[in-house]
Amino acid sequence: MKTYQVELGDRSYPIHIGPCLSDQRLLQATLTQQEILIVTNDTIAPLYLERVMAPLRASGKQVAAVILPDGEQYKNLTTLNLIYDELLAQNFSRKVVLVALGGGVVGDMTGFAAASYQRGVDFVQIPTTLLSQVDSSVGGKTGVNHPLGKNMIGAFKQPLAVFIDPSTLSTLPKNEFAAGFAEVIKHGVIQGADYFAMLETRLADIFALDMSALIEVISGSCAIKSSVVAQDETEQGLRAILNFGHTFGHAIETTMGYGQWLHGEAVAVGMVMATDLSSRLGLIEPALAERIIHLVEQAGLPIQAPDKMTVDSFLTAMYRDKKVDAGTLRLVLVRALGDGFLTAEFDPSALKDTLAAFCDG
Amino acid sequence: MKTYQVELGDRSYPIHIGPCLSDQRLLQATLTQQEILIVTNDTIAPLYLERVMAPLRASGKQVAAVILPDGEQYKNLTTLNLIYDELLAQNFSRKVVLVALGGGVVGDMTGFAAASYQRGVDFVQIPTTLLSQVDSSVGGKTGVNHPLGKNMIGAFKQPLAVFIDPSTLSTLPKNEFAAGFAEVIKHGVIQGADYFAMLETRLADIFALDMSALIEVISGSCAIKSSVVAQDETEQGLRAILNFGHTFGHAIETTMGYGQWLHGEAVAVGMVMATDLSSRLGLIEPALAERIIHLVEQAGLPIQAPDKMTVDSFLTAMYRDKKVDAGTLRLVLVRALGDGFLTAEFDPSALKDTLAAFCDG
Repeated sequence: MKTYQVELGDRSYPIHIGPCLSDQRLLQATLTQQEILIVTNDTIAPLYLERVMAPLRASGKQVAAVILPDGEQYKNLTTLNLIYDELLAQNFSRKVVLVALGGGVVGDMTGFAAASYQRGVDFVQIPTTLLSQVDSSVGGKTGVNHPLGKNMIGAFKQPLAVFIDPSTLSTLPKNEFAAGFAEVIKHGVIQGADYFAMLETRLADIFALDMSALIEVISGSCAIKSSVVAQDETEQGLRAILNFGHTFGHAIETTMGYGQWLHGEAVAVGMVMATDLSSRLGLIEPALAERIIHLVEQAGLPIQAPDKMTVDSFLTAMYRDKKVDAGTLRLVLVRALGDGFLTAEFDPSALKDTLAAFCDG
Repeated sequence: MKTYQVELGDRSYPIHIGPCLSDQRLLQATLTQQEILIVTNDTIAPLYLERVMAPLRASGKQVAAVILPDGEQYKNLTTLNLIYDELLAQNFSRKVVLVALGGGVVGDMTGFAAASYQRGVDFVQIPTTLLSQVDSSVGGKTGVNHPLGKNMIGAFKQPLAVFIDPSTLSTLPKNEFAAGFAEVIKHGVIQGADYFAMLETRLADIFALDMSALIEVISGSCAIKSSVVAQDETEQGLRAILNFGHTFGHAIETTMGYGQWLHGEAVAVGMVMATDLSSRLGLIEPALAERIIHLVEQAGLPIQAPDKMTVDSFLTAMYRDKKVDAGTLRLVLVRALGDGFLTAEFDPSALKDTLAAFCDG
C-alpha cells in the first residue's frame, strides 16, 4: 500500500494506493462513524458494492447505499436529490459519513452532497475509474452540471481520505481507461517532463494494466496534481493550469451535449488544440507539439474535433466558460514540456486558425 | 446609520442599520463588481426592486434580477435552480455578486446560490423583514428545505455586508412582524436579560414602528446573535442555543407542512413549550416562565400548538431533527433569564408532560 499525503493544512488527507478492496483495514480505521451512506452507480454496484458494504455492516454500523444511474448526463440537481432523499429517509445526522464508490461523477456528486447535507458532513472516496483516481480524487472540486454549463453548481470540499485500488481498472471499459489517461498525459505536459517521458516508455505496460506501472502512473499524477492544488486550493491562480485542454474540451462537451463524448476524449482533443495553438504562437517547437500529439494518439484518444463543431460553436461555448473573466478569454498554453501556464495574451487570429484547422479536419 | 461589525476573522463583515435605501452610498461602495444579480420575490419586487436596481444600472454595471415566488413553500431546490438559470443565462462569471433583497427565504436561497455557483461567489443581504433583519442576516446559514426536513441542504456562507433599512418594516404584514419578533424575544431569553427587559418596556413603541425603538431592537439582536456566532461559527457547541424553541417549532412546521404556520409563530409556541419544560424540570421559577410566556402573548404570537399536533407527531418530528445526535434528543432549555443552554439530560417524562399539556390545550 502506497500512501500519498495531500497537504492542505487542517484539510490535509491521505490517498492510499494499493489493494484497498482486498485489505480493508485502512478503510475500516478511517470510517469511525456509526452512520454510513455509500453512494455508487448501477454499473459499479454489482461489481463492488457488497465488498465495501458487508464488512461495515458486520461491524454493527448503520450502513445504507444509494445507487445512482451511471453517466455524466445524470450529474445534475435531480440525481443529487436522490442522495439527499436517502440521507433523510435513513434519518442520518450530521455525523454521517458518505462514501463515494465509483467514477468522477459519483465522486463529484457525493462530495457536493457531503458539502451541503445539513451544511456539511464528512466523506471518503473510493474511485474506481482511472479518471477519478488520477484527477478528481485530488483537489476537492465537487458539484453537478447545469444545462447551460458543466460543473456550474458545486463547492470545494476535501475528503477525509481516498482509497485507490488499481485492480478496479480491470472492469473499466477500454475507452474509459484511455479517457482517464488523457488527464495523465495532461499532468506530464503541464508539470512533469520526466513523468511524461515515463509514460512514453511504459505505455504498453500501462495499457496492459501492469500493477507496478499503474501505481507509478496514479501516484505520479496524484503527486503532480496535489502539488498544484496545495499551492492554490481555491483556484485563484496556479491551479488554473490543470485546465490545460479543458476550455476547448468543455466547448465540445457543451455543444455536443453531455454524455456524447467522454470527458477525457474531449480533453484529449482540447490538449491537442492547445498544443497546436502553442506551436502556432511559437511558444514550442513543432517537434514537441508532434511528440505530445503522438502520445495522445498512441493512447487511442481522438485528436480531431467532432464533425459537428464549428469555429463559431467553439467560440460561443468557450466565452461562456468559467475561465472567462470580464469577457477576456484565458487559455492554458505550454511553453516547454512540463511548463503549462495560463494566459490571456495571445493573438486571437492564431486561435481562429487553430479552431479552423480542427473544425475542417 | 449604525454599523455593527460581525467578527469572524477573514470572513468578518459589517451590518449597516439605518436609511440604507434612501441613502445608497454605502451600498454602492460595497458593490464594486461589474456583474450583479439581484434576487428578490414577487412581493418585494414591486416595492423595492427598482430603488436598488436603478442606481446600479446608472453606474454602468451589468445588473439583472430574478424574481422568485414568495413563500417558505418555494424554498427548495427547484426554486434555487431559477437563480442558477439566470446567472447562466446572463453568462455571469465568478466575479458576480448576488444581492438578496427580501426576507429570510430570499436570503437563505441567495446565500446558498452564492456558496455554490461556480463553487462560490460573493453576496450581500438587504433584508426587508424583521425576521431576516434580526436573525438570518447574522450567522451565514444558507440553504433550502427538503420535503423530509427544514434547512437540510445548505452551506455556511458569510455575506460581504448586510444593509438593514427598518423603514421596509412599514410594508411588512403585522403577523410577519410579530413572527420576526419571536426571534427577538428568543435572543433576550437565551443571552440578554437586560435586552428582554427593554423589550417589555418598549413593546408599544416597537409595534408602532418607532424608528429609534426598531434600531435598538435590531442592533441589540444582531449584537447578541453575532456574539454567539463569533464564538462558534459552524455550530459545534454554543451556537446551538440559538435553537431555543426551534426543535419544537420545526416539529410543528414539518408536521403541518411548510407555509401553514409562519416560522416565527412555530418558534413562539416552541419557546413557550421549552419554557414550560424548563419550569417543569425546576430549572426556573414558575414566575419567570409566566413572564416569558406573557411577552410572547403580548406580541400577538400563538402560545398553543395547532390542534392537529399530537404527542406522537411531535416526538416523531423532533427525533428527525438535525439536533438529534446518535438517537439522543438535545433541547435548548433556560435556567435563568439570559441563560439558555443545550442539554440532553432531562427527564423524558417531563417532556411528555409538556407535549401532552400543549397538545390537549
